[in-house]
Amino acid sequence: MAGTLSIVGVGPGDPELITLRAARLIGSAPVVAYFCREKHPSQARTIAQAHIGPATREMRLIYPFTTEVSVNDPAYHQNMSAFYDQSAERLAEELATGNDVTLLCEGDPFLYGSAMYVFDRLRTRCQTQIVPGIMAMNGCWAQAHAPMTHGDDVLCVLPATLPEAELADWLERADAAVIMKIGRNMPHVRQAITRSGRMDEAVYVERGTQGAQVIAPMAEQDGKAPYFSLVLLPGRKRVR
Amino acid sequence: MAGTLSIVGVGPGDPELITLRAARLIGSAPVVAYFCREKHPSQARTIAQAHIGPATREMRLIYPFTTEVSVNDPAYHQNMSAFYDQSAERLAEELATGNDVTLLCEGDPFLYGSAMYVFDRLRTRCQTQIVPGIMAMNGCWAQAHAPMTHGDDVLCVLPATLPEAELADWLERADAAVIMKIGRNMPHVRQAITRSGRMDEAVYVERGTQGAQVIAPMAEQDGKAPYFSLVLLPGRKRVR
Repeated sequence: MAGTLSIVGVGPGDPELITLRAARLIGSAPVVAYFCREKHPSQARTIAQAHIGPATREMRLIYPFTTEVSVNDPAYHQNMSAFYDQSAERLAEELATGNDVTLLCEGDPFLYGSAMYVFDRLRTRCQTQIVPGIMAMNGCWAQAHAPMTHGDDVLCVLPATLPEAELADWLERADAAVIMKIGRNMPHVRQAITRSGRMDEAVYVERGTQGAQVIAPMAEQDGKAPYFSLVLLPGRKRVR
Repeated sequence: MAGTLSIVGVGPGDPELITLRAARLIGSAPVVAYFCREKHPSQARTIAQAHIGPATREMRLIYPFTTEVSVNDPAYHQNMSAFYDQSAERLAEELATGNDVTLLCEGDPFLYGSAMYVFDRLRTRCQTQIVPGIMAMNGCWAQAHAPMTHGDDVLCVLPATLPEAELADWLERADAAVIMKIGRNMPHVRQAITRSGRMDEAVYVERGTQGAQVIAPMAEQDGKAPYFSLVLLPGRKRVR
């Protein structure tokens, strides 16, 4: 009997924002797996730490060095694709021995998560279950006291990697918007928000629900931003 | 010393998809409040049940009868606004006695939640904290095994109440989309999806993570849908 792969969202950073099911599956699996960078702790593992038992075996899925290769280089996608192939194989081998494996993901597994690439490779080969998690944006809008969608408001979730003009266009159309994964995209995100005329509404949140949280008007941000930062534009309270 | 109002998301339906913090705040508050219809149980209370202690006092915030008044009638919004005013007053009076109150919300408090209207009225008057919850859409896409956004995909969250042409336009632009609150909007939601040319991708989920869950191709749905139903359109795996 092969094991089951549970792909488990551990939420945005605060360890208390993990679900009861996630806590149970982390505590009961003989093997816990997670993505991480070499010589760096995994953020997902840090969030889950209290639930990992002493007898649990850990499988580290270590990203290849990608900072030397630009994301615009086809080699980047080839490297990542090969890495996800290998990660899927390691998980499949473990499951084949009969062990259940719990794969940890920051936020929710199915919104921009590395785990999706593994799921895509294993979904027809292995027994899988997905446990949703609190997403970064939910944690951030709760901390920022920013209700997002009233009535008929439309919410758009936008990656900061979109080109500036495209981002500005989305911001003009959307009622509520979240711009994810700011990081080094800060300069053109600022430009796009200014272009859309919505700078006064924009709230910047850095490391939301995590230790060194920052919440501030986007208009006051002009420096660097970490990857774990996003921008919230609350909705327009559109009524039918 | 006035009490604190904790507005707590209890997730999409499965009681195990509640967070550790929500469980703690439900268990520790002297008063638990929730919205409900007269003579009906509250869905949020049902989800939270296991954590409500025997000594906890319950405050039912009972919606006015609104089925007799069309949502297009200005009287509907006047009735609802008066109801939220009264609900906010009841909560404020309880907090003024020094009791903490935990207000339960299905899903996440700040995405189309009744609690936002109370928060809007009390945010400057009372001490508040917001606890995010797993949203219906997260629960549904996990159950449907539907990864939503890869790479640069944009996700749009759309209320089914939007006019058909507007809905179709959003579906054409979006990579991934979720159409919320289907209910009696089923006929024009179907039309809008057909018009956008994306019917083959659309997944219908009814009562996701709840007891009588249904997951099926949208193309096969033509009957009535309950309020707790939504449609998922997974992303296009857009790569830079």
